[in-house]
Amino acid sequence: MATIQDVARHAGVGAATVSRVLSGRGYVKAETKDRVMASIRELNYTPNEMARNLYYRKSGIIAVVVPDLSHPFYAQLVREIEDALRRDGYQAMVCNAFYEADYELHCLDMLRQQRVDGLIFGAHTSLVPEAYEKLERPVIGLDRILSDKIPFICTDHEEGGRLAARELIGSGCRCLVQAGDNEDSVITPSSRRHSAFRREAERSGVPCLSYPAHLDFGSYEAYRECVEGIFREHPEADGFFGTDLYAAACLQMALERGIRVPEDLKIVSYDGTWIIRFFYPGMTCVCQPIREMAGEAVRLMTELIRGNEPSEKKIVLPVSFRRGKTTGDAVTE
Amino acid sequence: MATIQDVARHAGVGAATVSRVLSGRGYVKAETKDRVMASIRELNYTPNEMARNLYYRKSGIIAVVVPDLSHPFYAQLVREIEDALRRDGYQAMVCNAFYEADYELHCLDMLRQQRVDGLIFGAHTSLVPEAYEKLERPVIGLDRILSDKIPFICTDHEEGGRLAARELIGSGCRCLVQAGDNEDSVITPSSRRHSAFRREAERSGVPCLSYPAHLDFGSYEAYRECVEGIFREHPEADGFFGTDLYAAACLQMALERGIRVPEDLKIVSYDGTWIIRFFYPGMTCVCQPIREMAGEAVRLMTELIRGNEPSEKKIVLPVSFRRGKTTGDAVTE
Repeated sequence: MATIQDVARHAGVGAATVSRVLSGRGYVKAETKDRVMASIRELNYTPNEMARNLYYRKSGIIAVVVPDLSHPFYAQLVREIEDALRRDGYQAMVCNAFYEADYELHCLDMLRQQRVDGLIFGAHTSLVPEAYEKLERPVIGLDRILSDKIPFICTDHEEGGRLAARELIGSGCRCLVQAGDNEDSVITPSSRRHSAFRREAERSGVPCLSYPAHLDFGSYEAYRECVEGIFREHPEADGFFGTDLYAAACLQMALERGIRVPEDLKIVSYDGTWIIRFFYPGMTCVCQPIREMAGEAVRLMTELIRGNEPSEKKIVLPVSFRRGKTTGDAVTE
Repeated sequence: MATIQDVARHAGVGAATVSRVLSGRGYVKAETKDRVMASIRELNYTPNEMARNLYYRKSGIIAVVVPDLSHPFYAQLVREIEDALRRDGYQAMVCNAFYEADYELHCLDMLRQQRVDGLIFGAHTSLVPEAYEKLERPVIGLDRILSDKIPFICTDHEEGGRLAARELIGSGCRCLVQAGDNEDSVITPSSRRHSAFRREAERSGVPCLSYPAHLDFGSYEAYRECVEGIFREHPEADGFFGTDLYAAACLQMALERGIRVPEDLKIVSYDGTWIIRFFYPGMTCVCQPIREMAGEAVRLMTELIRGNEPSEKKIVLPVSFRRGKTTGDAVTE
């Protein structure tokens, strides 16, 4: 195996010059640099990881963009992504894109400048699809459709929405309400759970109300406010569906008001983060396969980085269902 | 497009001097600096960020090491750190050091190789203090004492422990129990809350039991198991103190068993993450100033990166107290 000294001898320069070329540090004349590069190629010299990354402008870093890391779903997702990336020799850079288009552009710049090798994008995009396509660099949408050409991974949200509606209807609910349904404002497959939930309710002839999501994922007050609106405007609702934190806020408000769960109000949460398991009564959940999403995202990412076409353009992972105490036994009437 | 050499020629200095001015690293006479800056402006020189970083081996990246990102405290902390770093032009690399000494060494290697510019270290260390001291590179301990020479930031845990004990005793508790007390196994100032809690109980003549923490921060089962042990072995305990997730697990188990909170059992949680606000009844909390911790860590880090001595070696931030419904009104007996 060629050493740095072999390269230096072959190029007719000192080892320090080879180092400078490899590291990009210090001045090296263009023609000398070319000669060193040619020798590196000819001798098939493999520098150590650091030098090689610098040489190829490969950072070994994948940027992971999420709306808000303090949200339990994203915290758990990024944790799993970091874990999977590490096993493949990458590090995770985390970017909280609080719906800031500027920051999204900054992330794209890092990718363009090869400060990061790839982008796993799980935030809400404010850009046109071309912004991502034109980059021609490794980008993966995580529960986000960035463009037809960018591979993405999501959960089978339709099945998730159906399961939730069936559980609530099957346990006797006669008026359903779901929080977080603003299909049109965000391009995310996750909104499909809401249409599936609505359709399932319609099919059973059960009225179904929908409340839009606030987009401030990291604010307790915002969740409370949404749930308070539902309680005020629709006291007749007896079945609630929303992500873990909506469900937790709903459970809390019900208990504060002496509304019994599950007797008077049944709740199904969506996401199934590990945090929701701490609540009482035990929450009935539709669980997203967070670890599998992370694993698939990293697998696809490494394919893209190696310059391969991704094996799939769209990966849909199955949800699972965990029955807790917030839906109770099915009521036969 | 002007190069660094053009700027050097224009200012009548060497390229290395221009670099020193650009990076702020190394001594440059004030008048030389002014001349270089003038040339930079005149030639409209835009240093390529990547090249500049490579030249100085400055990555613009700070590694943030925590035990487990999916834990609400660390999720919120890293989110705030990312936010603060971004305002200073840095990106956050996140490292979940699940008590793996190997990974800790890997993080130190990244720092040594200047793949990252600094390390904010908030995990449990398995290394000897010298490992950090010898690096002579920007390292900050976040609630961790890495060595006498490494600056660190923490919360006033002693005050936190005192406040918790006083609240429980003041509201009538006659037998206290605290979870997470394993002072000797981890070098973290946070263990001081437990000794302060114990001392406060002793001063009031109230018995105080201590249960060691499990170190698997991301496991619901581990929290449950610890709390189950307490309930089994000490049914007489009527005041509980633990971090948010211990407190949540305790609240859940109490409610499952028909133990009334706060009538039969009072609970004070520690951390005050935003997640704990979703629980019912509303949790009485000692709150760590998470945003301030992040802000101070980033402020100190940028001082170190600029080559300055840190303005403080030890920063202790005050806790705050939020009374909820899990302690109830003080009982007069």
